[in-house]
Amino acid sequence: MKRLKEILSNIQKLESAASVLHWDQETHMPEGGGAFRAEQLAYLALIKHRMVTGRELRDELIRHIDYDSGKIVNITLSRDEKRLVSLVRKDLKKLTALPDRFVETMSRHVSNSQQAWIKARKNKDFSAFAPYLEKMIELKKQEAEYYGYEDKPYDALLDEFEPGMTTERVAALFGELKPRLTGLVERLQRKDPADRKILEQKFDTGEQWAFGMKIAEAIGLDLQRARQDVSAHPFTIGFHPDDVRITTRLNEDDLLSGLFSTIHESGHAIYEQGLSKEYYGTPLGQSASFGIHESQSRLWENMIGRSREFWSYALPLLQTHFPKLKEAGLEDWYRMINVVRPSLIRVEADEVTYSLHIMLRFDIESRMINEDMKVDDLPGLWNAKVQEYLGIKPKNDAEGVLQDVHWSMGGIGYFPSYAMGNLYAAQIFGQAQKAIPDLLERTAAGDFLPLKTWLNKEVHLQGRRYDPEDLVKVITGKALSADPFMDYLEEKYGEIYHL
Amino acid sequence: MKRLKEILSNIQKLESAASVLHWDQETHMPEGGGAFRAEQLAYLALIKHRMVTGRELRDELIRHIDYDSGKIVNITLSRDEKRLVSLVRKDLKKLTALPDRFVETMSRHVSNSQQAWIKARKNKDFSAFAPYLEKMIELKKQEAEYYGYEDKPYDALLDEFEPGMTTERVAALFGELKPRLTGLVERLQRKDPADRKILEQKFDTGEQWAFGMKIAEAIGLDLQRARQDVSAHPFTIGFHPDDVRITTRLNEDDLLSGLFSTIHESGHAIYEQGLSKEYYGTPLGQSASFGIHESQSRLWENMIGRSREFWSYALPLLQTHFPKLKEAGLEDWYRMINVVRPSLIRVEADEVTYSLHIMLRFDIESRMINEDMKVDDLPGLWNAKVQEYLGIKPKNDAEGVLQDVHWSMGGIGYFPSYAMGNLYAAQIFGQAQKAIPDLLERTAAGDFLPLKTWLNKEVHLQGRRYDPEDLVKVITGKALSADPFMDYLEEKYGEIYHL
Repeated sequence: MKRLKEILSNIQKLESAASVLHWDQETHMPEGGGAFRAEQLAYLALIKHRMVTGRELRDELIRHIDYDSGKIVNITLSRDEKRLVSLVRKDLKKLTALPDRFVETMSRHVSNSQQAWIKARKNKDFSAFAPYLEKMIELKKQEAEYYGYEDKPYDALLDEFEPGMTTERVAALFGELKPRLTGLVERLQRKDPADRKILEQKFDTGEQWAFGMKIAEAIGLDLQRARQDVSAHPFTIGFHPDDVRITTRLNEDDLLSGLFSTIHESGHAIYEQGLSKEYYGTPLGQSASFGIHESQSRLWENMIGRSREFWSYALPLLQTHFPKLKEAGLEDWYRMINVVRPSLIRVEADEVTYSLHIMLRFDIESRMINEDMKVDDLPGLWNAKVQEYLGIKPKNDAEGVLQDVHWSMGGIGYFPSYAMGNLYAAQIFGQAQKAIPDLLERTAAGDFLPLKTWLNKEVHLQGRRYDPEDLVKVITGKALSADPFMDYLEEKYGEIYHL
Repeated sequence: MKRLKEILSNIQKLESAASVLHWDQETHMPEGGGAFRAEQLAYLALIKHRMVTGRELRDELIRHIDYDSGKIVNITLSRDEKRLVSLVRKDLKKLTALPDRFVETMSRHVSNSQQAWIKARKNKDFSAFAPYLEKMIELKKQEAEYYGYEDKPYDALLDEFEPGMTTERVAALFGELKPRLTGLVERLQRKDPADRKILEQKFDTGEQWAFGMKIAEAIGLDLQRARQDVSAHPFTIGFHPDDVRITTRLNEDDLLSGLFSTIHESGHAIYEQGLSKEYYGTPLGQSASFGIHESQSRLWENMIGRSREFWSYALPLLQTHFPKLKEAGLEDWYRMINVVRPSLIRVEADEVTYSLHIMLRFDIESRMINEDMKVDDLPGLWNAKVQEYLGIKPKNDAEGVLQDVHWSMGGIGYFPSYAMGNLYAAQIFGQAQKAIPDLLERTAAGDFLPLKTWLNKEVHLQGRRYDPEDLVKVITGKALSADPFMDYLEEKYGEIYHL
């Protein structure tokens, strides 16, 4: 077992070196370095692939588990160790399920397809992207066949992002969500939005940075083991629990965007810092899923970062950085940061409407894979779905079906994780409030340590011990459901808007 | 040949990934990431070592050259290719010359010895470092035996830094230098130094940065393929000719230090950017030696950067960044940046006295290796040498024998490269002035392109086609000598100080 952990940790050291190169590429690399960096990363990926699929790992693995059947053969393994070797086998099987030739075709198509998408979006012209998407769907269907599945082909793709999730299960959860969520949005639309004029000023980005860093540190990001840089799109990347990087993008015209992005990425980074060092490189030292990762960023960004209690602590601090906000009272501020309005662009959506954007994408992409859908029908279907979920209508494809990069890069099956993150977050946060009865008082006092410590233990240190849905059940004692999220939203927004 | 180049290029991609990690470590990495980064770099070094010493490279190499005799066996090779395979063989032979066990012992000793040196220097107590240095000398003697040499053991160590150089040759060059250089310093000491009161002000580091970047770009650093960051000690690191990083350290109390450091590192970086991309990873795409690298930084820093012509272009620009320097005239400024005074600390020495610091170190370290020297005699010997070369005396070991990190980390044989860099630079610069008759007028006009282009062709693109001394001969048509450097110094300082 020691040797297996060592091999996995070594592979991860290489993978993590590639992560440093990726991080550098997005934050510091001079433009001219791009072509060589791509070559360099491709070569590192090749070495890593050789290591992962090489004899050394496999020989060690099969001392513990039968590669074909998945039956544990080393009877001395602990429960953790059994889970560990099962996941290594599963990952390896997936990695070797795709023929080299398919991987190459896909990789080339992703590159072409992304370029076509960029151009098509710029020209607001779906038809220019359509043939690439058609080919992509065909390839993803093939990929699903290579991976295998029990019920629907889309399940095989979902498993990449949310292990154990199925089309049926996601559809059921989103089905619970839909009536309550669209109902809430409808009720909220009848209310006057908060007056946000005070936010229509210039906010010095240096002060934004300084305040953001204070908040990141306050909620529990260990800056001895993390740093923040600037990039075109905010992201978090962990090299090791002791070295995690977040990025932000600041705009003097938009105070809230940079601020909440820093809290969001800090949530991801606190997760990364909380992963097991002992199990570094093994599945038990990895995050449970994209959705669970997202739950950690959403929990800090929304459930904490958009709460009244948080701002009763943070607003006075913000006002020392921006004296021009002195006249904003806590209640006004709380309403300003919790405005709900249906909008066309997913990444600009608020906490309430966000999941609706995801649900319509799920409806469409699961049909793309599970059924025979004509790509040409897509813009029409998209616009109808936007109308159905959000009650509004895109003016063109750029703010409609072409807005997201995901499909062009083959990320079909990814979208659900974003909304699952909200469901996980709410259910986990509910449990945290039970475990820490004075959680909100502590929040108002700027003391986030109890919550961070609880999340470390209940979520982060678990790694991939459980599939995401099971993890939520282990933590909360209840099956995953859309209710906690809806209860949270209805209570919060009902109170703000006197519904 | 294609396959050999490919293997070498792949190895270099990995090496260069490690360089990115090193760069990050010195510029951005959070403190807590240090322990993991060390592990990660050690692992990358191990993979690289396996690749370099593995069968793939060797099998390919011996198709072109006999590994034992060094005889070329592929008669279709061009002259360049013959040189290439000879150097690959030489490097590989050196790399495999040291038994694993020795490498391990050395690596452990370097780590202990550096820590002991840090402490000893802090306490100004050579005796605490003496046993570590004694062991280091013993190990380096052993290393020289493993590598092999024709005349003196120190030659084997020199070869690491200046291929082809020998104790005898360095001693001869330094022997030429010594009387003229000490004579010049003596004459200069009788003259009044320039009045530098105007420099005793605060200089905003943001403005220093902005001016430094303008100068770096002006002399030819391509900022599409390079960037500058801040680090504790300035350095240059090239990942690829298309991605080179320099660092600086700025101090509002010391305008000149940061400025000349940026020019110095830009000189290194222009070399790195000028290396052959076609031969990336092979010896023909590598720099010729530490001394040739240093010649490129010194040439830009001193021969250009401390010239009257350069400042007739740059001073008005500097004054727009620092209006408080408006009253400084060109002649005053030129004298201020060319003050010569013997001092105790090598890294603070001026252009004239710098080489004297190196010569005394060479005298001592070549004796350490070639003779049986008592380590306890070292402080006394050091102080006597400082008196002999510079006419001054250290008050304690921290500003004497303990000031440099090199010996503690096993870098015996490194020092001469610094002074060789001055000799190479002067001889090459003399040739550049012949090749570009209006070089100084161009400099005064802020047009550095002719010089940069000439250096690209004559020096950078040559890679390791020639050993450094041969390279100088190929470029200048004359054997390397100390005369061009002394002629340059005597003419320049004779004129400034009316000797």
